[in-house]
Amino acid sequence: MINEDIRSYFPVLNQEVNGQPLVYLDSAATTQKPIQVLEAVKRYYEYENSNVHRGVHTLGNRATDSYEGAREKVRKFINAKSTEEIIFTRGTTESLNMIAASYGRENVGEGDEIVITYMEHHSNLIPWQQLAKEKNATLKYVELNPDGTLSMDTVKEAITDRTKIVAMSSASNVLGTINPIKEITAVAHSHGAVMVVDGAQGVPHFKTDVQDLDCDFLAFSGHKMCGPTGIGVLYGKKEHLENMTPISFGGEMISTVDLYESTWADLPWKFEGGTPNIAGAIGLGAAIDFLEEIGMDRIVEHERRLTQYAFEQMAKIEGISIYGPTDPAKRSGLITFNLEGVHPHDLATALDMEGIAVRAGHHCAQPLMRWLSCAATARASFYIYNNEEDIDRLVEGLRNAKEYFADVNE
Amino acid sequence: MINEDIRSYFPVLNQEVNGQPLVYLDSAATTQKPIQVLEAVKRYYEYENSNVHRGVHTLGNRATDSYEGAREKVRKFINAKSTEEIIFTRGTTESLNMIAASYGRENVGEGDEIVITYMEHHSNLIPWQQLAKEKNATLKYVELNPDGTLSMDTVKEAITDRTKIVAMSSASNVLGTINPIKEITAVAHSHGAVMVVDGAQGVPHFKTDVQDLDCDFLAFSGHKMCGPTGIGVLYGKKEHLENMTPISFGGEMISTVDLYESTWADLPWKFEGGTPNIAGAIGLGAAIDFLEEIGMDRIVEHERRLTQYAFEQMAKIEGISIYGPTDPAKRSGLITFNLEGVHPHDLATALDMEGIAVRAGHHCAQPLMRWLSCAATARASFYIYNNEEDIDRLVEGLRNAKEYFADVNE
Repeated sequence: MINEDIRSYFPVLNQEVNGQPLVYLDSAATTQKPIQVLEAVKRYYEYENSNVHRGVHTLGNRATDSYEGAREKVRKFINAKSTEEIIFTRGTTESLNMIAASYGRENVGEGDEIVITYMEHHSNLIPWQQLAKEKNATLKYVELNPDGTLSMDTVKEAITDRTKIVAMSSASNVLGTINPIKEITAVAHSHGAVMVVDGAQGVPHFKTDVQDLDCDFLAFSGHKMCGPTGIGVLYGKKEHLENMTPISFGGEMISTVDLYESTWADLPWKFEGGTPNIAGAIGLGAAIDFLEEIGMDRIVEHERRLTQYAFEQMAKIEGISIYGPTDPAKRSGLITFNLEGVHPHDLATALDMEGIAVRAGHHCAQPLMRWLSCAATARASFYIYNNEEDIDRLVEGLRNAKEYFADVNE
Repeated sequence: MINEDIRSYFPVLNQEVNGQPLVYLDSAATTQKPIQVLEAVKRYYEYENSNVHRGVHTLGNRATDSYEGAREKVRKFINAKSTEEIIFTRGTTESLNMIAASYGRENVGEGDEIVITYMEHHSNLIPWQQLAKEKNATLKYVELNPDGTLSMDTVKEAITDRTKIVAMSSASNVLGTINPIKEITAVAHSHGAVMVVDGAQGVPHFKTDVQDLDCDFLAFSGHKMCGPTGIGVLYGKKEHLENMTPISFGGEMISTVDLYESTWADLPWKFEGGTPNIAGAIGLGAAIDFLEEIGMDRIVEHERRLTQYAFEQMAKIEGISIYGPTDPAKRSGLITFNLEGVHPHDLATALDMEGIAVRAGHHCAQPLMRWLSCAATARASFYIYNNEEDIDRLVEGLRNAKEYFADVNE
């Protein structure tokens, strides 16, 4: 299925930007959506749109079945034990904040430690930073190897018996580094800490099996894996979720409401106050069907091949710096780089003039930017619909930009 | 535009349920979506899908323009002073919880009072109940008149100089009562309290002008006003929002992130951590265009006429109890009722067998159910696409159900 035909499923790719066929290399920010997902959303609205759980009429039952059916697809996709462990959220950011605001507030106290790394996205950094401030706990950063990978020795040194939470991304949105989550989880558990995984850049790109990893929490976003915007997932082990207090109160999440006391619904609804993004969840379910039809193994293989090709081609450009591991087997499908003498924003603008969409900036990872000693970088990120021709266009665009700015700077 | 043709914009209405043409009378739970909204969402995904604010490429700029354009549509729709006061959320429930968790936690202390009413939806009740418990504050309920309206004398008695927050719905989701928010806001302000308005059942049905009301906060949901699921709005006066601490941390909402400290972005982005529901916001903008093209005045008139007609026809059925004000000018377009000797769930199921969708249950308002001395009710709720024929079908269905259950009960 990953062949020339795959692009035909993505109508957005079939357009010209600034007079050139669009090359979309910004999938780490958000992926494009196949028609299968758009059709699933449309079908919901045109056939069964209704509020969920509360209905005793046909549309309400259809909507509930589809919404809960999507939850089962998510469960199966990440191999959770039960749909009780799958909570629909707006996205990774909300999921991580929920863990910090509920589990974190209830389990982290003065002098306790929270361990993260220098490569975390702000969404897996600020919630822990603010929690540590509130609780007088210590936020510890695991140092990176010079190539942007983690060393297990450094990880083991950072995690101690005072550690209550270890929070790490399974893949970095800047370095592309894939982290050894299973091994780190074992270390966390050996010290009685829970393992929180930011799967925003991992779950869309390689098989993530929560039972195999044994992680306690996993957060990810639908829009980065061919799903709609506004939908994401919080996975939590039932033993944790059962003991956690909900932080959003309203419809759907209650058992009984008295004037001055309330009791909560069963899992997972306890954490889903208010009307959920029903169409979003159904769209995410369709995205999972789409990815599974391709096969996560083939997605890994495709991205690895593309990344290796891009690495080789880009490395030939004089003055380019590429960040992160050089071994494509250690990274996911993105390449973050700078071109000597050209500000990344100017570079992205120049590429856009040729119809090539890359991102430039701090990528919501300012501490990592400081570690890399740069204010900003450019980033090209790949997904199932990209091919070698896209990389060729990028490399050609970079050469053109280099030439152009060399003339300008003279 | 509210004529026979309007139904052609709503594909979902053009179907049979259980062998009968669908009569959808559950719009207070969620409304159907016109093709204009579905097309706006589709257009976004097929032409400009990209992450917002962070892009320096064409699709990113298009997505940002559309997303921020939707914010301006919302601002104009409720006549806020500035788009800085418009925050996109998942819906009313999240909006109200944000106010409680941020403004509430920062401004309510021991012995302070929070004033709500017996008619509040759980989403405008539990957040205040839990806040009061946390802060040792007092939660006060304003009593209702026997017809389910508020008396200004009772309201004035309840609000004192110890009141910090008054939180009320502009229209009840059970009684249909429209509350005098402008007058209540003036009373709240005269005691130095802020006014929080749950507009979930108000904003979709009548013009809501935040400057005219002078309310401090307003919460509402897109999916109850022809918009997509998973998108809603928190309006707050700038003077409050500026002083409030964000409660969700991540991408988009920061200014600077150091290892142990962070500073926040300007309004409104400070409160929008993580990738927002971009397509949802754009769909909500299209829904607002649609409603404004009809005109809120005509929507009020249409619903009032329908409600009056339904009231008259339903009142003729022996054994029916209708809750809430009898004057249609005092209520929004919904009728909550019970039929003697028939459990509301059975009634809703019987109506569904004839293709008529009504809701039955506690309507997320358990304290109000106790005030009404019933465990559950049935509810028929109307919107722009309903007509007198729908009411006739409902009344006929009720008569059939009454006959059927009378036979069964004999």
